[in-house]
Amino acid sequence: MDHLENNTIIQIGIVVRDVEDAATRYAQIFGVPKPQIVAIAADSFANTHYRGQPSNAWGKAAFFDMGAVQLELIEPVGAPSTWEEFLRLHGEGIHHIAVRVEQLEEAQAFLAARGMPVVQSGGWDGGRYAYIDSVKQLGAMLELLKFDRETSRQ
Amino acid sequence: MDHLENNTIIQIGIVVRDVEDAATRYAQIFGVPKPQIVAIAADSFANTHYRGQPSNAWGKAAFFDMGAVQLELIEPVGAPSTWEEFLRLHGEGIHHIAVRVEQLEEAQAFLAARGMPVVQSGGWDGGRYAYIDSVKQLGAMLELLKFDRETSRQ
Repeated sequence: MDHLENNTIIQIGIVVRDVEDAATRYAQIFGVPKPQIVAIAADSFANTHYRGQPSNAWGKAAFFDMGAVQLELIEPVGAPSTWEEFLRLHGEGIHHIAVRVEQLEEAQAFLAARGMPVVQSGGWDGGRYAYIDSVKQLGAMLELLKFDRETSRQ
Repeated sequence: MDHLENNTIIQIGIVVRDVEDAATRYAQIFGVPKPQIVAIAADSFANTHYRGQPSNAWGKAAFFDMGAVQLELIEPVGAPSTWEEFLRLHGEGIHHIAVRVEQLEEAQAFLAARGMPVVQSGGWDGGRYAYIDSVKQLGAMLELLKFDRETSRQ
């Protein structure tokens, strides 16, 4: 692998203090239905690891389809997680941009070899993800998303 | 206007310290050509206003097409600007998400009435923009983009 498989951004993640409030405001301002608030990293598929150690932290999330890009609002619950860390250090803000990959381990190794290690990883019923500490190199955190099935979306 | 005209995200803006370095890394990691670095808010179209006052601050930018979304890397030059402020307060990171509007003034008024004022506005040869201080309400800064012509992209 001499570069990532694609450069298509499929998701933007925003860390907020109160996902109910934020989702209500997005729905009002953009004139779209308010999605159900769902738990992420909170089930038997999660297997969340943060900086190499297991973590029971999770999140409350709302997903909006904003054109070709999915917007994910995340309220951190518990610690440690990359979401909780971001909120504590930066306040509310845009946490990550996500690209889809087929070769998750290879992509992680490719980035780690260039100084961009995994900061958090885990899974859901439909795939696995890895957040990459790429802020120094790219000015933003990347998320790699590996879907088990063709049509899965996180 | 009881909501914005559309909810399609067309651009993500990332503030970086050195756009040459960041653009080189994006090109390498995603396997795409490195775009030319261009000056933004630096010509006779700019008419930049920051918090209501004229500003001569500008930026060096690189634009990448990442699927349906354009990624904009911005290195602030001079002050005051929302880019310089973001870099000073938060460090490098994702600065804004942008949506296209046809009714720029109406959209600004709609958001201002809900506690989300314009923080910076200006233009380029092809359209006008307004950055909205919507972090408290939406967890992220919005940019409104108004294109003069159908096919313009910033």
